[in-house]
Amino acid sequence: MVAVTVWNEYRHEREDSDAAAVYPNGIHETIAEALAADHDVRTATLDEPDHGLTADVLAATDVLLWWGHEAHDEVADGVAERVRDQVLEGMGFVPLHSAHYSKPFTRLMGTSCRLQYREDGETERLWVVDPGHPIADGLAESIALPETEMYGEPFDVPEPDRLVFVSWFAGGEVFRSGCCYRRGNGRIFYFRPGHETYPIYENEAVQRVLRNAVAWAAPTEGSPRTFGERE
Amino acid sequence: MVAVTVWNEYRHEREDSDAAAVYPNGIHETIAEALAADHDVRTATLDEPDHGLTADVLAATDVLLWWGHEAHDEVADGVAERVRDQVLEGMGFVPLHSAHYSKPFTRLMGTSCRLQYREDGETERLWVVDPGHPIADGLAESIALPETEMYGEPFDVPEPDRLVFVSWFAGGEVFRSGCCYRRGNGRIFYFRPGHETYPIYENEAVQRVLRNAVAWAAPTEGSPRTFGERE
Amino acid sequence: MVAVTVWNEYRHEREDSDAAAVYPNGIHETIAEALAADHDVRTATLDEPDHGLTADVLAATDVLLWWGHEAHDEVADGVAERVRDQVLEGMGFVPLHSAHYSKPFTRLMGTSCRLQYREDGETERLWVVDPGHPIADGLAESIALPETEMYGEPFDVPEPDRLVFVSWFAGGEVFRSGCCYRRGNGRIFYFRPGHETYPIYENEAVQRVLRNAVAWAAPTEGSPRTFGERE
Amino acid sequence: MVAVTVWNEYRHEREDSDAAAVYPNGIHETIAEALAADHDVRTATLDEPDHGLTADVLAATDVLLWWGHEAHDEVADGVAERVRDQVLEGMGFVPLHSAHYSKPFTRLMGTSCRLQYREDGETERLWVVDPGHPIADGLAESIALPETEMYGEPFDVPEPDRLVFVSWFAGGEVFRSGCCYRRGNGRIFYFRPGHETYPIYENEAVQRVLRNAVAWAAPTEGSPRTFGERE
Repeated sequence: MVAVTVWNEYRHEREDSDAAAVYPNGIHETIAEALAADHDVRTATLDEPDHGLTADVLAATDVLLWWGHEAHDEVADGVAERVRDQVLEGMGFVPLHSAHYSKPFTRLMGTSCRLQYREDGETERLWVVDPGHPIADGLAESIALPETEMYGEPFDVPEPDRLVFVSWFAGGEVFRSGCCYRRGNGRIFYFRPGHETYPIYENEAVQRVLRNAVAWAAPTEGSPRTFGERE
Repeated sequence: MVAVTVWNEYRHEREDSDAAAVYPNGIHETIAEALAADHDVRTATLDEPDHGLTADVLAATDVLLWWGHEAHDEVADGVAERVRDQVLEGMGFVPLHSAHYSKPFTRLMGTSCRLQYREDGETERLWVVDPGHPIADGLAESIALPETEMYGEPFDVPEPDRLVFVSWFAGGEVFRSGCCYRRGNGRIFYFRPGHETYPIYENEAVQRVLRNAVAWAAPTEGSPRTFGERE
Repeated sequence: MVAVTVWNEYRHEREDSDAAAVYPNGIHETIAEALAADHDVRTATLDEPDHGLTADVLAATDVLLWWGHEAHDEVADGVAERVRDQVLEGMGFVPLHSAHYSKPFTRLMGTSCRLQYREDGETERLWVVDPGHPIADGLAESIALPETEMYGEPFDVPEPDRLVFVSWFAGGEVFRSGCCYRRGNGRIFYFRPGHETYPIYENEAVQRVLRNAVAWAAPTEGSPRTFGERE
Repeated sequence: MVAVTVWNEYRHEREDSDAAAVYPNGIHETIAEALAADHDVRTATLDEPDHGLTADVLAATDVLLWWGHEAHDEVADGVAERVRDQVLEGMGFVPLHSAHYSKPFTRLMGTSCRLQYREDGETERLWVVDPGHPIADGLAESIALPETEMYGEPFDVPEPDRLVFVSWFAGGEVFRSGCCYRRGNGRIFYFRPGHETYPIYENEAVQRVLRNAVAWAAPTEGSPRTFGERE
C-alpha cells in the first residue's frame, strides 16, 4: 500500500456551478475514491492551514497528486519548496492537467511549462506510445475521452525521460500527455486529462492510469544521498 | 557543403504507373533536386552494383538519405553492415517513411521498428514539438499534408534522444514522425512523410526539413574512437 | 518470484585452471546461488542443445542473465535473434562483463559495443551516480573490488536511459559500468564487473546488484503491442 | 562569430592573494582571452549594476558563461530569472565549476545540484565518453589536470541529455564533468573544471572545450514558440 496524498486547489467546485455539478465533493474526493481500493489515501486542499501540506504530512506521503488551476499564485513559496525538496528525497509527484503551471511542477522542471489550449469540449484520444511502461498496464491501445479541453504543442518542458501517452484532438492538435521524469530520487508523472467541468476522473481508464502512476511513482530504497565535504 | 548520397530502392516508380506519375525520375531525383542548392548531392539505387554504395561512395558521403519499401530483403547484408559501420564512424543517416523497416535502420535501432498503417489518402499534420531543434529551423508551428498514408503508434523504436515532430491524422491516430538518435559518432533522423504515390517530397516545408536534417546530421570532428587493449 | 535463467558460455571454467579455481562449478552456478533465495532460477550453457535456450525456455523466462567471452561467435544467429525478440516482448536481459560483445547485446544496441581494456588485477570502485534507482537499493555510496580487469571509455553504446554506476580504476580510467536501457517492452541492464579469474560474483554488494537488477528487469503487464494494417 | 558574455563573480581574485596570483585580472578576463580569437566577447561581473546583465546585454548575448562561488546569494532573483528566461528563448548557457550551485543553473535544473568535494590539489583526468560530440572536437581521449579540487558523485542533477566527460580523481572518486541539457530553446553545458586557485583556464585543452561549448550552445533559428489560447 502506497501512502497517497491527493492535493486539490478546490475552488472551482465551490465557486462554479458547472464544476460543482461534476465534482460535488471536489476533484480530490473523486480521485481519492478511485485510488482507495489499492492505496492508503488522504486529501489536502489550498485553503487548509499550510495548504494541508505540513512537513509531517509530506514526510508521511509516498506519492502526491496535485490539481490546481486558478490559484497557483496563492500557493506559498515555502510550501512549494517543501514539496520540491520532498520529491528530491524520493516522494512521487503526479501533477494533473492544469497543474502543468503549478509552482511545484514548474520549479522541478525549470522551464516555463507553457502550452496552447482551447476550451471547446472536443474529443481526445490518448495513444499509448510506450506499451511496455507500467503506467500503461492493463490499458487498451488508446483512451477515448468524448469531451475535453484541448492542450496543444509546443509544451515547454524538458524532454521526458519516457513519453507514455500522446493525445490526438478532433480539432487537429497533438500533445505529449503522459510524461515521466526523475528528479533527485523522486519520480514525476505529468498526466494531461482532467478539466474541472468534464467528468474525466470518472473515466475507468483514466482511473487505471492514476492507480498505475501511484504504484510507479512510489519511492524505492535507493542508496545514500551524501553531499558536502569528503575526507 | 555537405556531401549527400540519396539512396532509393527505385522500383515502384518503374513498375507502378501511379508512382511513375508522381515521381517520373524516381523519388531520389526529386529529393536530390531539393537538396542540390545547398549541398553536394549524388544518388544511388538498389539495382546498381553494390546498390551504388561501395566503400568508396560511403567514405565520400557525409549524410545518406534512404528510401525503400518493397525490396528491403534484396539489400545485401554486407551493404547494410557497411552502412551501419559508416554511421558509427560518423556518417549521418536519414531514413525516410517506409525505410523504418530497412536493414540499416533496424540494425542501428536494435528493435523491430514495427508500426500501424492505413493507406487511405487522409490528411496529416506534423506538429513541431521541439521548436528549438535545428531541424525545425524556419518552419511554421505545423506542416499540413493533404493526402498521406497513415502511420500509427505504437512505433517500436528506442525512445528518441530528441523528438522533433508528432503527426496528427484525420482518422484519429498519432505518430512520432521526426526522431533523432545518435549511434556511435553518427547522427540519425527518422522522418515519416513520403509515400510513393503522394507528392510529399514536392512539399516546400518537407524539403526544408530534409535540408535541415542534412545540415544537422553532417559529421563533426570529434575526438579519437580508440578501442582495444591499453597499456 | 521472478523466473530467472542464468546463461553462461562455460568454457573458461572447464579449460583454464585459474578460472576453475575461482568458479569450480561455473560462473552460472555461483550467480544462480546468489539469486536463488529471492528468485526461481535455472541455468543454461553454450554447449547444451540450442545453447539451453529453446523457445520454451525463453517463454518461461522473466529475466535472462548472460555471461560470455571467448565464444560469442559460436552462439547461433537464430538463438541470438530469439533472445532479442523475447526481450522486445518484455523479457528482462542482464548482460554481464564481457557480454558487452555478445550477439544478443550488440544486436539490441545497434552499435559496436567496443571499449578499452587492460587485464592487470587493479582496484575498481563503482560509484552509484543514481542513488534513487532501484538497482542501487541497499548499496553504500560505492562498491570496492580489489582486483579486476579494467574496462575504459569510450564505450560504444547508445546513451543509456539511466546511468547507475560509473567505475574508477586505479590505473587512471573510468567506465560507465551500469547502464539501463529499454528496447521494445524489455528492460536491459548492462553490468560491467565479472572477470572469470577474479571472484567478483562472490562479492556481496555485486550479488545485491544482481538481485536488484533481476527485480527491476522483470516484465510488467503493459498494454497491447499491436502492429500492422488498421481499418 | 558568436556573441559571448563571460560572467564572473570576481570576488576571490580581489580578496584572496592565492586567487589573485593565478588570475590577476579575474577569471573572466582569462576566459575572455581564450575565446576572443573565435568569438565576439564581452564580460560582466557581480558588482556592476544589474551584475552587468541588463535586459539589453542578455538580448545581445548568444552564449553566457558563468563562474560564481562564494556569493551566489548576492545574485538578485530578478537577474537570475532574466537569465533563465533568456535561456528558454534560446541563449546558450555554460556554467563552470562551482556555478553548479548558482541561481540560474539550479533554477534551470530544478534539482539541488549538490555534490561531494575535497580541496586537496589532486590530479584529475577528464575522459571523453562521447567522442562524437562537437564539444569533444579536436581533443585527445582525455584531459589531464595536475592539480584540482575534487568533485564527487552523487551529483544531484537531472540525467543529462548527453554526457560528454567523466572525471577520474587520484583520490578515488569519479564525476560527470561535462553535461549537456536543453531547456526551452536554450542549450546548456555544465563543465566542471575551474577552481580559483589552480590555473585551469590556462590549460589549452580546457580552452578548446570552452570554445567548442560556445559554438555548440549558440542559438539556432528554430520554429515559433507560440503559447496560449488557440482558435
